[in-house]
Amino acid sequence: MWMIETSIGNSTRDEIFVRGRNLVTELIGEVDFTEMALLQIGGAMPSKQEKRIANAILVLLSDHGITPSVIAARTTYAGAPESLQGSIASGLLGAGNRLLGTSQNTADMLKAAIQASPKGDATELAVKIVSDYQQRRELIPGFGHPVHTNGDPRAARIFEIAEDCGFRGRHIELITAIEKTASASRGKFIPINAAGAVGAVVADVGWSPMMARSLALIARTAGLLAHIAEEAENPQGMKIWDLVVKNTAAPK
Amino acid sequence: MWMIETSIGNSTRDEIFVRGRNLVTELIGEVDFTEMALLQIGGAMPSKQEKRIANAILVLLSDHGITPSVIAARTTYAGAPESLQGSIASGLLGAGNRLLGTSQNTADMLKAAIQASPKGDATELAVKIVSDYQQRRELIPGFGHPVHTNGDPRAARIFEIAEDCGFRGRHIELITAIEKTASASRGKFIPINAAGAVGAVVADVGWSPMMARSLALIARTAGLLAHIAEEAENPQGMKIWDLVVKNTAAPK
Amino acid sequence: MWMIETSIGNSTRDEIFVRGRNLVTELIGEVDFTEMALLQIGGAMPSKQEKRIANAILVLLSDHGITPSVIAARTTYAGAPESLQGSIASGLLGAGNRLLGTSQNTADMLKAAIQASPKGDATELAVKIVSDYQQRRELIPGFGHPVHTNGDPRAARIFEIAEDCGFRGRHIELITAIEKTASASRGKFIPINAAGAVGAVVADVGWSPMMARSLALIARTAGLLAHIAEEAENPQGMKIWDLVVKNTAAPK
Amino acid sequence: MWMIETSIGNSTRDEIFVRGRNLVTELIGEVDFTEMALLQIGGAMPSKQEKRIANAILVLLSDHGITPSVIAARTTYAGAPESLQGSIASGLLGAGNRLLGTSQNTADMLKAAIQASPKGDATELAVKIVSDYQQRRELIPGFGHPVHTNGDPRAARIFEIAEDCGFRGRHIELITAIEKTASASRGKFIPINAAGAVGAVVADVGWSPMMARSLALIARTAGLLAHIAEEAENPQGMKIWDLVVKNTAAPK
Repeated sequence: MWMIETSIGNSTRDEIFVRGRNLVTELIGEVDFTEMALLQIGGAMPSKQEKRIANAILVLLSDHGITPSVIAARTTYAGAPESLQGSIASGLLGAGNRLLGTSQNTADMLKAAIQASPKGDATELAVKIVSDYQQRRELIPGFGHPVHTNGDPRAARIFEIAEDCGFRGRHIELITAIEKTASASRGKFIPINAAGAVGAVVADVGWSPMMARSLALIARTAGLLAHIAEEAENPQGMKIWDLVVKNTAAPK
Repeated sequence: MWMIETSIGNSTRDEIFVRGRNLVTELIGEVDFTEMALLQIGGAMPSKQEKRIANAILVLLSDHGITPSVIAARTTYAGAPESLQGSIASGLLGAGNRLLGTSQNTADMLKAAIQASPKGDATELAVKIVSDYQQRRELIPGFGHPVHTNGDPRAARIFEIAEDCGFRGRHIELITAIEKTASASRGKFIPINAAGAVGAVVADVGWSPMMARSLALIARTAGLLAHIAEEAENPQGMKIWDLVVKNTAAPK
Repeated sequence: MWMIETSIGNSTRDEIFVRGRNLVTELIGEVDFTEMALLQIGGAMPSKQEKRIANAILVLLSDHGITPSVIAARTTYAGAPESLQGSIASGLLGAGNRLLGTSQNTADMLKAAIQASPKGDATELAVKIVSDYQQRRELIPGFGHPVHTNGDPRAARIFEIAEDCGFRGRHIELITAIEKTASASRGKFIPINAAGAVGAVVADVGWSPMMARSLALIARTAGLLAHIAEEAENPQGMKIWDLVVKNTAAPK
Repeated sequence: MWMIETSIGNSTRDEIFVRGRNLVTELIGEVDFTEMALLQIGGAMPSKQEKRIANAILVLLSDHGITPSVIAARTTYAGAPESLQGSIASGLLGAGNRLLGTSQNTADMLKAAIQASPKGDATELAVKIVSDYQQRRELIPGFGHPVHTNGDPRAARIFEIAEDCGFRGRHIELITAIEKTASASRGKFIPINAAGAVGAVVADVGWSPMMARSLALIARTAGLLAHIAEEAENPQGMKIWDLVVKNTAAPK
């Protein structure tokens, strides 16, 4: 009969293995968490530069103050303080196609365009993408930010580090061309946001698009835990409830 | 009127701050993810030894092969591959009082015992705890493992590293005493498991018990992401369904 | 070898059974959803009065306008519109020991008190409970409401229906005594809230305390779905984000 | 300034309104849960026939024995019995584009085809749909079942009831044509499954496709609660873990 298959890890009575390495003697105390995460997800120990860019991305995505995810996590904790995992799960569920998870959608879009036209001119590809999204009346993933209207400062920084690590490639080139084209076409600056920049960098490193959303989920778990540790000491969830109710229009 | 309060982070049009530091100029590319997570959750940049023990704990908790959390994440992905975040949330929801989250319950138990009797003899405290749990017919959190019946190899290793970092203290002493007392009382070896060991170490570092479950959630997010990356390439979720159905008894 | 066991349902190539009944020929089109839910959870077809009280409880708990659960569900949907189930899950996670799920905690408290003293005088039991909670500085589950400070209008109504169904018993008597005692002791009216009333009614019907939280979860799933159907047409999640950010105090 | 808007419900100190009706005097004890759910989600009290078909769909979708959702919910409960809502959320997260939530995808597909060609011949539309999905190498949503290979007995029954209610229309006609065309094209019977049938019926009633997934989520909440009530009495989650581990292949 067929068996369940996994190459990630296994254990016996006395030993535990992850990706073929002995967890106790080769990993705990020997590698750090970023290396461990990349080893598990990617299957191989990361290079120095891969580790460096992964750390930069994880730090970048950890927190952005009070976000929709944080609001969900805190209001959930207000109702169910018995379950830390429940409020974290509630917050992570918002890392989707519109916010945060968009890094994956951006990587998918860039990768598809470049695979379809490996030697195509970036500006020509950008023009096509911008016009396709306009026709379908869809937002281009990875662009625009309600607060950082002058440009998301995290985007420029992560591109710098990617370049320094030797990862700047065609995907960063293409997303930069899209920024120019979209801004020209709309007559106002449409900046690459943090999720978009991460998507481009992940694609240039050569990781799968899913890695972009994966890094977002790891980073945001830490960020949400910080908010809930604070919520446990100085609760804001019920105040958020009150604030929203007080600002809800009377029914017609 | 009152305002929502948070000391974790905030942003303006051009800048983002986390714990008072400029995210773009002081954190991205400057600190690694473990430092960032501890800074966010704890409010201060960790010492070298805190970072070292946090990395060891995070690596230790990242994966243990096919666990109930992994089964939940994979079967969820089989039904809803459109939502990576949904399958991760599904897996994290099992990090509770019985599995994985037990590190927090262990830290709570040890901390309460030592706070109530700061100079008490460890063996006497252990005897009292073991008999209290026996009377209430409850399991002592942090003990026993279905696979590692001879002792969980991760426990000894994390105690070693804690000692090496200068963190070995009264909580590790107490949990070790509980292991002896419980084993003697039951007439069979009742080993400290990984979650229990982590709970004791977290308490000895001086972190709050919630930090124990927090580290478990960060670590397991990475582990679950590895399993789902694999699931996307080589699906096992439907096979798990089939296996469980085939092994379900016919109704009476 | 042991097998997985369940008495809820099973299926063959051509037939599906739930609680021993043929789903297609005996249930679909023959019973309504409330009967089906009670049959599944309780194992037997409900009596007319059980069905009536279950419907009243489910209707009562379905919606209360913008609640923390609704805020979580809507902010989650703003980030991840690709997953309806994700936003519903996010909202349900707040049905815990503090809000909504409190019905179960109330039923547990009342049931334990009456089991410990089956013939005890309700006022005496109430005095003991109120003083126990005061000593432990814990809130009595099922009491108080931020909006309905004069009394939760749903509580009186569900007690009326319970009486009409022949279910008014010792648990409703006890919670009413606690309301009087707690209000006298605090010098202000501490009203039974909807969750508390439901907990008392569920206990008087003879259902397990878990049934109280179960009915809350079913009812609130419908309520959250209504909010998300509206959110999809007229999005409020991003407005909630903006509102909360605008009302967040500048960091010190 | 703009305000948060909702037409679902609101409350004052003494009254609660849902869709303009007084919850306490007009709804609790006056309407049943199915009516309440449809009122909330759809905005209007359902007709008798709408209520009847909704009940039939809800009963149909409540349970199908041990499914991936049930496995997720039970393994989650094994780790975190402190949170009933967590295990239900974990189970619901699997109601996605591949399983259960497929009812929505089916309704979307059928509705789009009929809107694009309101008077088109069903067989011609079916041929086009089948060939489009074949070209894209995608599964047609709402077809096939691992157990009910001879046809899903729930599909025929819900079509019967839909007809009896006067709801049989172009969407049921089209899905039936797709079943014939797909089966002929593949040379084996590709049956409409329960989710597919529900999607077609929902579209013929005139509800939005999201209503199909919404009814699935309400129904499955009840089903999952039944499994967890049983799990609390007779735990299977750890046995599922053991079973899966024992049937996992040794790593290469």
